[in-house]
Amino acid sequence: MQHDIRALAFDIFGTVVDWRTSIIREGQLLGARLGLVQDWAAFADAWRAGYQPAMQRVRSGELPWTHIDALHRGILDRLLAERGIALDEADAAHFNRVWHRLIPWPDSVAGLHRLKPRYTLATLSNGNLSLLVAMARHAGLPWDAVLSAELFRHYKPDPEVYLGAARLLDLAPQQLMLVAAHPSDLRAAAACGLRTAYVQRPLEHGPGAPPPAWRPGEFDIEVGDFGELASALA
Amino acid sequence: MQHDIRALAFDIFGTVVDWRTSIIREGQLLGARLGLVQDWAAFADAWRAGYQPAMQRVRSGELPWTHIDALHRGILDRLLAERGIALDEADAAHFNRVWHRLIPWPDSVAGLHRLKPRYTLATLSNGNLSLLVAMARHAGLPWDAVLSAELFRHYKPDPEVYLGAARLLDLAPQQLMLVAAHPSDLRAAAACGLRTAYVQRPLEHGPGAPPPAWRPGEFDIEVGDFGELASALA
Repeated sequence: MQHDIRALAFDIFGTVVDWRTSIIREGQLLGARLGLVQDWAAFADAWRAGYQPAMQRVRSGELPWTHIDALHRGILDRLLAERGIALDEADAAHFNRVWHRLIPWPDSVAGLHRLKPRYTLATLSNGNLSLLVAMARHAGLPWDAVLSAELFRHYKPDPEVYLGAARLLDLAPQQLMLVAAHPSDLRAAAACGLRTAYVQRPLEHGPGAPPPAWRPGEFDIEVGDFGELASALA
Repeated sequence: MQHDIRALAFDIFGTVVDWRTSIIREGQLLGARLGLVQDWAAFADAWRAGYQPAMQRVRSGELPWTHIDALHRGILDRLLAERGIALDEADAAHFNRVWHRLIPWPDSVAGLHRLKPRYTLATLSNGNLSLLVAMARHAGLPWDAVLSAELFRHYKPDPEVYLGAARLLDLAPQQLMLVAAHPSDLRAAAACGLRTAYVQRPLEHGPGAPPPAWRPGEFDIEVGDFGELASALA
């Protein structure tokens, strides 16, 4: 591929880290400690399902700017109440920060280390900056820059996020490539002039969940993991 | 020292990196290549001396928000004209980016690696984000977060910068410590509630230059280099 790509901006939840497995695991540990019987996979899916509607309330102006830690906590409190789970404040606050401790997909860290010598590596996530910084320290993610929707007070797929990242990195949009497991995110980035790399993560929503709809050839790069991404961009 | 410090925010120019030696060195290389006879130490000092007045023009509203790369270029173009130095655009643009390639003080990288396991390490510089990212890649500075005045559209010592850093890191001001070689920067941070670490850099302005005025005991930590800082915060 001919290109002048200087930096890669990574979507995080589902693209770099496996939120579902991480939440199931911490839910199981919490349940074992407190004697709770729960379907933690369903809990994880419900927590994640609350995310887009919560961001939409910010986008629409119904809520003032609210960062993801707070949106996650609102969803968590509702799920706990619906299920009759009583957690004390320390346990609830700790469980809410599971999003700071999400584990990378098995190929993520090695792939990023292969890409880092040649490209500036940035996050470009709807997660708040402190969440992304904590996750990087926990998971060993070697970012050069932690960029968040929080810096622009707009959530993806608003164009302010993609164009704001290019501006802060002092790049033209076509010098910046978004890496994401979500076609909708990539389409919004492409509409702003960014290059796009689609990484398929068929297990993001669990085994058997339908993959997102996309058309082969729609994105500049289409790969199965970060190792293939590093090879494609070598 | 009793404390609840969670993160360290570092001033960069003069505190982490030795701008003067770096500019002298690149000036000498440029001069040797182009046959220029110049006092590059005086050139470096003049370039740096233009920095505070240029930021003041932004603070006062005389200039709209303008990042440091552009301010540096304006000062550089004036210095070149005053000295009758003709550089082509590629050489001028490259020389202006010497601020992206500043070399760390000898203790900086090792000290940061000692501090990193225990504290979140962030920049907090008036330098623009892309400059700080390029510098970190060039010099091997292991930041967890690259924070810049650019994110707040205010230059230090405006309080928006110190308080904005604490907010993005999701910390109370007293959980964040500014590390700087400049008493004025530290005093402004302390006025916002941050903790302060003064690192003496007696060679910042060259041998024999008078040190800045300060009173021992004025700051929470007062050290001679980043190794002593790591020991004081162990």
